[in-house]
Amino acid sequence: MEESVRGLWTEARELINPLGADSDSGGIERLESPPSPLQFLRDFVSPNKPVIISSVATRHWPAISRSLWSDDSYLRRALSGRSVSVHLTPDGRADALVSSPSKDGLCFASAFVQSMDFAEALRLIETTGEDSSPVVAYAQQQDDCLRGEYAAVAGDVDAHIPWATEAIGFLPEAVNLWIGNARSHTSYHKDHYENLYAVITGEKHFLLLPPTEVHRLYVRDYPAARYIASSKENGGELKLKLELEEPETMVPWCSVDPYPASDEALSEQISSFPLYFNGRKPFQCTVRAGEILYLPSMWFHHVTQSPDDNGRTIAVNYWYDMQFDLKYAYYNFLQSINLKCLSAVASTQGHDRHSAKQDCKSSEP
Amino acid sequence: MEESVRGLWTEARELINPLGADSDSGGIERLESPPSPLQFLRDFVSPNKPVIISSVATRHWPAISRSLWSDDSYLRRALSGRSVSVHLTPDGRADALVSSPSKDGLCFASAFVQSMDFAEALRLIETTGEDSSPVVAYAQQQDDCLRGEYAAVAGDVDAHIPWATEAIGFLPEAVNLWIGNARSHTSYHKDHYENLYAVITGEKHFLLLPPTEVHRLYVRDYPAARYIASSKENGGELKLKLELEEPETMVPWCSVDPYPASDEALSEQISSFPLYFNGRKPFQCTVRAGEILYLPSMWFHHVTQSPDDNGRTIAVNYWYDMQFDLKYAYYNFLQSINLKCLSAVASTQGHDRHSAKQDCKSSEP
Repeated sequence: MEESVRGLWTEARELINPLGADSDSGGIERLESPPSPLQFLRDFVSPNKPVIISSVATRHWPAISRSLWSDDSYLRRALSGRSVSVHLTPDGRADALVSSPSKDGLCFASAFVQSMDFAEALRLIETTGEDSSPVVAYAQQQDDCLRGEYAAVAGDVDAHIPWATEAIGFLPEAVNLWIGNARSHTSYHKDHYENLYAVITGEKHFLLLPPTEVHRLYVRDYPAARYIASSKENGGELKLKLELEEPETMVPWCSVDPYPASDEALSEQISSFPLYFNGRKPFQCTVRAGEILYLPSMWFHHVTQSPDDNGRTIAVNYWYDMQFDLKYAYYNFLQSINLKCLSAVASTQGHDRHSAKQDCKSSEP
Repeated sequence: MEESVRGLWTEARELINPLGADSDSGGIERLESPPSPLQFLRDFVSPNKPVIISSVATRHWPAISRSLWSDDSYLRRALSGRSVSVHLTPDGRADALVSSPSKDGLCFASAFVQSMDFAEALRLIETTGEDSSPVVAYAQQQDDCLRGEYAAVAGDVDAHIPWATEAIGFLPEAVNLWIGNARSHTSYHKDHYENLYAVITGEKHFLLLPPTEVHRLYVRDYPAARYIASSKENGGELKLKLELEEPETMVPWCSVDPYPASDEALSEQISSFPLYFNGRKPFQCTVRAGEILYLPSMWFHHVTQSPDDNGRTIAVNYWYDMQFDLKYAYYNFLQSINLKCLSAVASTQGHDRHSAKQDCKSSEP
């Protein structure tokens, strides 16, 4: 079985990009001009293949062409008096695995979400970019926030990506705005959406793994936890405390951290997750201001960012409903296969074959 | 593993057609007018989903609108003096499994292919439609024959299917003509092409199984054989004899015969291939004169036909190169899984575990 799964990894990589992830472009194709709807559907959405489209696609967006979103005074004026949702964490890692507050092992930590005046959010994002800050702020809310909290500036970008809308056949389900600093990053996960990810200022750095490689990320169940704000001490500085959800709630999440904080942590990652660290590199790309990444549904992605001169990265992503087709059924099938299964049965002795068989039941991570 | 594969079968069926194969339409969607290229690509090619398009799509084809291909005198005149390839078998089953001529078991039998004057081919197709005829003739050649042997009548149909060509992005690789009688049928197989199958006269009856159900067809290796013409006896009647290829050549082929000739053969089929006969029905549809079936790449299909008033069924199929994408990699992975594997290991006792492990190696049927 392991051999079959490895064969799938290799074949899928070759079909996605014969050059491989190690090529100069990190394995992601780039288009110099926006594709036609048919080309986008045929060459990228249908084969589930990422692509970066050059800034020609967005040069008519006022947010970019008139540099509106690089201009603090414009943003403050346009969003004056608006409340926005800011995600607060101690280290920029929300929706990520961290040490559990009350037992051994890891938990899945959600940010503390605070609604605040936009000017205050902008100030926090700037000041919490310093490594010394005990909190990191990330203005985001994956609830169509561009058309909600940020409606006042929504006209500065296109309401949808016209060639994607025509290809996919309907308007985006959600359009989200993201304003963060260099410390925020997003751990490996996948979404059930076709994602058009446009960077407005700064840069986003993506690691991408195709859905065929789900086993390399060791998706396991972790107890859910969330940061809560403890009383402000020492002149009002916010302090965050992690609490497990009660009653206990389990969240399936990718175990791999591609950029562990220390050499020791890296060693532990390598020995725990050899399929990731000893295998082929993920596809890797940087999306610059004005560019759009098509991030296909079901692809695992890890995201970090580099700020603009104002210390910020701003992006807008368009989520289109995905089509649930044969690829999706195949993915669920692949995911249901426990890779340890055959080797466990093969290595077991007669006396404990029963327990090995238990391990071999289909898992649904 | 079996449970996972069964889960895949169920989920893929639900995604292809929530109504299922047992619905009135046999599970195949019908369109009253030709789709736009985008619709065809998005709703059918990309999700790998069959569809029948009404005769509106072909009403401008002279072969149909002027009934040219139902007219013997027209066909004879237009193709006068042309040689065409005729496939001859004892029973209408070419590229099918039949009893091996020299050992136990089955072999994969190819037709005896004879080049003859078109008028003679037409006569043979008519006369060999009788059950008493010891030979069945089928004029066909899957080598782009409409634009080759039948070039003189190629203008009676469209050279390609315009909305399919625009969707797929290039012209068909091959366009084939098929002229047969009620006795010819085609055993379960799949093609690495997107297939647009237009019936001109008579009807074609398809059984269709999605690629996810490959294990239900018990693809196994069979020795290749071919019919050869033995000396004409008794006043010139053709006699066919089956010979195994030398040196032995193995052909992987679907073992299931959905319409066995006798009750005894049916019982044997049911006990040998329970996953097919005890499982969900295949999708089932009839394509009538003027209609086009989109038969997606990699779908298994079995074809029989009903003749027109002249005793013939005539069809033209357009083969477009398929896109080798994630679906294809997933298919190869699925096919590499030996379904007997886990149950064999689970049921084995300590002393013969080694041989069970041997069985569990990935198979490539």
